[in-house]
Amino acid sequence: MSSDDRLRQLVLEAATLSSTASALGWDQETYLPEKGYDWRARQLAWLSGRHHETVTSQAWGDTLSEAMDRAPDDERSLGNLREMKRRFDRATCLPTALVERATELSSRAKHAWAAARRDSDFAAYAPFLRELLEVSREKAERWGYPDEPYDALLETYEPGTTSAALDTLFRPLGESLSRIAEEAIERSRRRGLELPPGPYPQAAQMAFNAAVAQSIGFDLEAGRIDTTTHPFCTRLGPTDVRLTTRYNEDDFTSSLFGVMHEAGHGLYEQGLSPEDFGMPAGDSASLGIHESQSRLWENHVGRSRGFWQHWLPVAVGHFPQLAPLSLDDFLAIIHRSDRGFIRVDADEATYDLHILLRFDLERRLFRSELSVEDVPAAWNEAFHASFGTRPPNDTLGCLQDIHWSMGGFGYFPTYTLGNLNASQLFGAALGCPEVATATESADYAPLLAWLRENVHQPGATRTPAGIIRGATGSEPAAEAHLRHLRARYLA
Amino acid sequence: MSSDDRLRQLVLEAATLSSTASALGWDQETYLPEKGYDWRARQLAWLSGRHHETVTSQAWGDTLSEAMDRAPDDERSLGNLREMKRRFDRATCLPTALVERATELSSRAKHAWAAARRDSDFAAYAPFLRELLEVSREKAERWGYPDEPYDALLETYEPGTTSAALDTLFRPLGESLSRIAEEAIERSRRRGLELPPGPYPQAAQMAFNAAVAQSIGFDLEAGRIDTTTHPFCTRLGPTDVRLTTRYNEDDFTSSLFGVMHEAGHGLYEQGLSPEDFGMPAGDSASLGIHESQSRLWENHVGRSRGFWQHWLPVAVGHFPQLAPLSLDDFLAIIHRSDRGFIRVDADEATYDLHILLRFDLERRLFRSELSVEDVPAAWNEAFHASFGTRPPNDTLGCLQDIHWSMGGFGYFPTYTLGNLNASQLFGAALGCPEVATATESADYAPLLAWLRENVHQPGATRTPAGIIRGATGSEPAAEAHLRHLRARYLA
Repeated sequence: MSSDDRLRQLVLEAATLSSTASALGWDQETYLPEKGYDWRARQLAWLSGRHHETVTSQAWGDTLSEAMDRAPDDERSLGNLREMKRRFDRATCLPTALVERATELSSRAKHAWAAARRDSDFAAYAPFLRELLEVSREKAERWGYPDEPYDALLETYEPGTTSAALDTLFRPLGESLSRIAEEAIERSRRRGLELPPGPYPQAAQMAFNAAVAQSIGFDLEAGRIDTTTHPFCTRLGPTDVRLTTRYNEDDFTSSLFGVMHEAGHGLYEQGLSPEDFGMPAGDSASLGIHESQSRLWENHVGRSRGFWQHWLPVAVGHFPQLAPLSLDDFLAIIHRSDRGFIRVDADEATYDLHILLRFDLERRLFRSELSVEDVPAAWNEAFHASFGTRPPNDTLGCLQDIHWSMGGFGYFPTYTLGNLNASQLFGAALGCPEVATATESADYAPLLAWLRENVHQPGATRTPAGIIRGATGSEPAAEAHLRHLRARYLA
Repeated sequence: MSSDDRLRQLVLEAATLSSTASALGWDQETYLPEKGYDWRARQLAWLSGRHHETVTSQAWGDTLSEAMDRAPDDERSLGNLREMKRRFDRATCLPTALVERATELSSRAKHAWAAARRDSDFAAYAPFLRELLEVSREKAERWGYPDEPYDALLETYEPGTTSAALDTLFRPLGESLSRIAEEAIERSRRRGLELPPGPYPQAAQMAFNAAVAQSIGFDLEAGRIDTTTHPFCTRLGPTDVRLTTRYNEDDFTSSLFGVMHEAGHGLYEQGLSPEDFGMPAGDSASLGIHESQSRLWENHVGRSRGFWQHWLPVAVGHFPQLAPLSLDDFLAIIHRSDRGFIRVDADEATYDLHILLRFDLERRLFRSELSVEDVPAAWNEAFHASFGTRPPNDTLGCLQDIHWSMGGFGYFPTYTLGNLNASQLFGAALGCPEVATATESADYAPLLAWLRENVHQPGATRTPAGIIRGATGSEPAAEAHLRHLRARYLA
């Protein structure tokens, strides 16, 4: 067997393990009965342990070295091996027992978090948060970091970024965002438009959402849409991508934009090379690139005039109460801005303020400038500074997100990177006249083709910044996003 | 680590692998998108291979031997070890490559079967059936058998039984059944009663079914009910039991009896000791015992006068069109008998004739008295001999069942064993006055407690025949079932 074949065989074994874990994880979020959690945690821990053993094995390392010694001459293969090496080096820093512990803890913590969130009981969650921090700290120390432990965690989700780099990008953004948000909120208040009252029946929402998802290119034979409290997208195999959403019969746009968001993630996953499943060439580049795809389809496409020129009449067919609305009024409704407490419900104008708050808090936790018991007060204080109000309880405050329970410290900043990337990529795509013309009339095939070529196909053979540079000709930056927000919310 | 602890650890690892495969299998039957099948087949093959390696490993064998050498003095532990040894001996007969091939073939064959069944295209399915037979033949040869290859396959599902023993049990049954069925069908035809026309809305069926499932003791916090074309029950963890059913808005009894049937399986699974998950002490004894539980709840409870005295008024609340029906007429409706082509839709009076046909056909296939290409003609011939009609196509004939595609040759006879066992067990349970009185008034807690003690708790520490003997004081036999059918259909 050639070393390429051996490498491919090892990769397939690792991909089998990780995709099996993804399938069990999907089931845990969608259908797992209450009493099934303990065993599921055990299964996931075991799978993560075996996966870790495979991707850190001597055989893996040797075969990878041999493949690198032969130095393939195409950029894609080189990028693939380079990223495999980076992942191997990071993975070998962690003992299997730590990986299994992290997985098992995450299952338990997610379960505890759900109860604590329901009861707004931070004290019940605090011991889990402490242990989650401890495990992430240990990982950070084992990985090493240029400047501060939090950098090592950021590297997991956004290779090549650091706290300092994000700080440089985020600080001026924060100031501009506050002003944009304030004015956007004031304008929405003055216009006072509301969606006509429900019900928007769930069955009609499902039919409408599926039609929209298919029309933007999501392949429902290689994926599905289920219902969960917390929408997400996950890939269970090379051609099996699952989206979830939630339904509110008072507001069909909630599930619709949820589906467009997750379908944006799903289009990225469906655009990755199935033949390279399990290798960087068939994997997403980073969460910041992933989120750029969800935000692009949700906000740049889904909240645009061109989209609704085509889809509002279709929506009226499903939801007759929309009939009296003009297109302008409908657009004003879906461009409303306000001071909600919940990140996932936040509009574009305020969303990133929620992220900057979390970035700052996480960084302070890992610098030991903030202790677990002070998290609720610090959260509420920061929220007040950004929004001028205080969450009335922790369910609407520091208990609202699942990420910490997944061990996902360093994950939040990628949402804002995604917003910035989305604006930059969408602007570049519209630079192609063919894409611009078709997008204007709600034909998204050229836009998707552009994204396939410039963002999806490279997988993780390029760095996130490399993808943005390659696709847009510029470094990742905040300007395009601020321009987009000003045009949409202050024009 | 003591050898008991080592054994437990190995058992947990094997149980993790097999329950993970069960979870992926459940997803394959419920939600897997069309293009996800190939990868799923790969995952399942890999998991079955690793499971097989674990349960046939030197470590497993050594630890099991050590545990047996210490010869525990309680019957349960002894039975557990004895059955582990039997399973180990059988498993070590098969090379891992054969197990992986069988699993992977089964995934592909199920997929091909679904298409062939839809199109009534036996020729498209025949190559799969040939390969399935070849793999099962190879297994049989490796396992060995007393008399004929089919015996080795029967042993998989019903330890301790043989073709000859089934022949002895089934031959007189067949003759009696034909007479009972003929008269039952004629009586139904004469009475000519029909369920009032639908719609019986699916949502109302779901609510009613869930209430019934819970009332007989199925724990919905340790399980769930989903929708599939082919109803089944599977256990994904010690306390995670999934049922499925299908809905027909013209006839609510179809999903209801489906749920009661699967909940019967589920009650058995929920009654197995969770601490012994992965060992015979926490596993079902055989399919014939399993099916006795589903049939007991579906037919002996679910189609009884006592049950409907309580539940018919509740059903009327969900389905007002039932209001004019008398209890007697309703019972006559659910005791109808006819000559349908489809086994899973067959009534009690005709069901076992469908099984005897399959038993005979499978046995001839494995004796090489019947070739694959002659299966459709042989099926139709045998069906005509039993029912006096011929299936108009193979969808309604030899392509109707999924079992062969699962590699499940030898599985069908356990359905009839289940019917016989159910009648025998239900009769014995009613021998306890407390059970009889409560059951009469639709309080099933004493019946369930009796089954827990006499059937569920032993798990596979006793043989199937041992369980029947222990619970009823008699050898497994057909008389109780024939008495039950005569009382219900000919009285």
